[in-house]
Amino acid sequence: MLKPLTITILGSNSALPTANRYPTAQVLNASERFFLIDCGEGTQQQLRANKIKFSKIDHIFISHLHGDHCFGLIGLISTFGLMGRKAPLHIHSHPHLEKLLQPQLNYFCVDLPFQVVFDDFDPKQKGLIYTDKHITVETIPLKHRIPTVGFLFKQKLEERKLKKDFVFIHQPSIKDRIAIKKGSDYINKDGALMSNKDITLDPPKPLSYAFCTDTKYTESILEQIKGVDVLYHEATFAADNAHLAKKTYHSTAEQAAQIATKAGAGKLLLGHFSSRYKNLDVLLNEAKAVFPNTFLAIEGDVIHVGQ
Amino acid sequence: MLKPLTITILGSNSALPTANRYPTAQVLNASERFFLIDCGEGTQQQLRANKIKFSKIDHIFISHLHGDHCFGLIGLISTFGLMGRKAPLHIHSHPHLEKLLQPQLNYFCVDLPFQVVFDDFDPKQKGLIYTDKHITVETIPLKHRIPTVGFLFKQKLEERKLKKDFVFIHQPSIKDRIAIKKGSDYINKDGALMSNKDITLDPPKPLSYAFCTDTKYTESILEQIKGVDVLYHEATFAADNAHLAKKTYHSTAEQAAQIATKAGAGKLLLGHFSSRYKNLDVLLNEAKAVFPNTFLAIEGDVIHVGQ
Repeated sequence: MLKPLTITILGSNSALPTANRYPTAQVLNASERFFLIDCGEGTQQQLRANKIKFSKIDHIFISHLHGDHCFGLIGLISTFGLMGRKAPLHIHSHPHLEKLLQPQLNYFCVDLPFQVVFDDFDPKQKGLIYTDKHITVETIPLKHRIPTVGFLFKQKLEERKLKKDFVFIHQPSIKDRIAIKKGSDYINKDGALMSNKDITLDPPKPLSYAFCTDTKYTESILEQIKGVDVLYHEATFAADNAHLAKKTYHSTAEQAAQIATKAGAGKLLLGHFSSRYKNLDVLLNEAKAVFPNTFLAIEGDVIHVGQ
Repeated sequence: MLKPLTITILGSNSALPTANRYPTAQVLNASERFFLIDCGEGTQQQLRANKIKFSKIDHIFISHLHGDHCFGLIGLISTFGLMGRKAPLHIHSHPHLEKLLQPQLNYFCVDLPFQVVFDDFDPKQKGLIYTDKHITVETIPLKHRIPTVGFLFKQKLEERKLKKDFVFIHQPSIKDRIAIKKGSDYINKDGALMSNKDITLDPPKPLSYAFCTDTKYTESILEQIKGVDVLYHEATFAADNAHLAKKTYHSTAEQAAQIATKAGAGKLLLGHFSSRYKNLDVLLNEAKAVFPNTFLAIEGDVIHVGQ
């Protein structure tokens, strides 16, 4: 069975605050491991509001060091400490973050009962920065005013599945089953060779999710995100402010849709909305005209990747 | 006429977050000058939600350097910058704040279009730290785990009021009116001396507001806050956790009420509630048993001092 991959939107507004919109933060749930992506001010409150258990978050990925993507870190770490967390917390980010955050941790989080591990990456290079049994995470270099990356989350290919009738008839040993799942052929009790493709089923296609904010329109990311199931792409502006998008290294909704189309994405999620758009339909409509399977990322939304 | 003095509660929870409660922050409106008192994470969003114009805030007072009282500063300052603020912003605090905040400002708020002025105070001494035409602000040394102060906001005594019938009958010159308002007697056209007290009315009694959090029970503050119109006093715990209050240098609701009683306060506002109390009535009731004119400070509440 396909392992679910879900995204919960905690915040998808751009830098200026509104009464009910939060700066960027979202949580990816991959096989009940929770990955926090960006951490704008108020993230800890949004985690509470969305009933996400703090203790399940061991890794935080920070796209870039603009405040609306990381000002919530110190409060979240402080709260982890007050709650008595013991497990190490990994923060994957530009190397500068440690220099900025460590003095605050030293002052505000004395006797923190867990370790904060800064896992630096080079934002100019695409690279594998995390892997576990189920998923991998790669950086996607983006084009913004300061060094910025997106993140590509990919499920690992699962083992091949044994066909039920084969198991019923031939009763392979545990050892044989393990080998067959990894691709081995099988010699049955009559000494006949059974080809792996005849006794197994393909595993489900691994799901993938690409998080791309903040960035101007850039086709340099297309190869890396080709065929991604869900693409979150920033859409700070509508076409009326294309000049501002260009000036500030952001994208329009239409540009986000062009990237989704050219990448062959399954679904497009728009985010990082400028506060000037009280009604976000203009952004949604402009994108849908190019890429129909587009949705707005709104606080509290839960997106099931692959559905 | 008495100039209004109002307080808007932006956050009154203690450190651990909940879905709909914010850490400490409130705004005092004194003659349309807005003073921000403490600045927990999410303050800028709460300012928006309560429709308080960012541009009217020129002074921020920070009680102490625990995160739930100051983690919202960097986000708020950053937003002020994005909004093109020009006026200097004064932050009144313990001297350590500048050392903690300046590196963040240098990194995240490059080319800030206004000046951040750190107005340090000595938290061990009570002292006058701000004065303008209408009010004064004094620090109130409290007893917490780290150096902490409360703030006493006092309206200045207004000039004496000319009695209407005196003005109608004697038609004093502008110069004379100014002198009489300041307390001078008057010699009328017949050469007779008219005593100031016979030709003027007392100005309204100046209003005052004391903000006292975080602190354990301490009678050392009583003399300074004697007769205050509204006392905001922390009430982190109910009586069931008096031992925790003692251990963590916080107060119980009953202790807050005892301080209000002994200080002869007009009204008591309870705040800084522990997240363990889902229903705050236990805190309210314990305080009211000692000091009946007690209220809970809840996000969005607007308190009119002197009413």
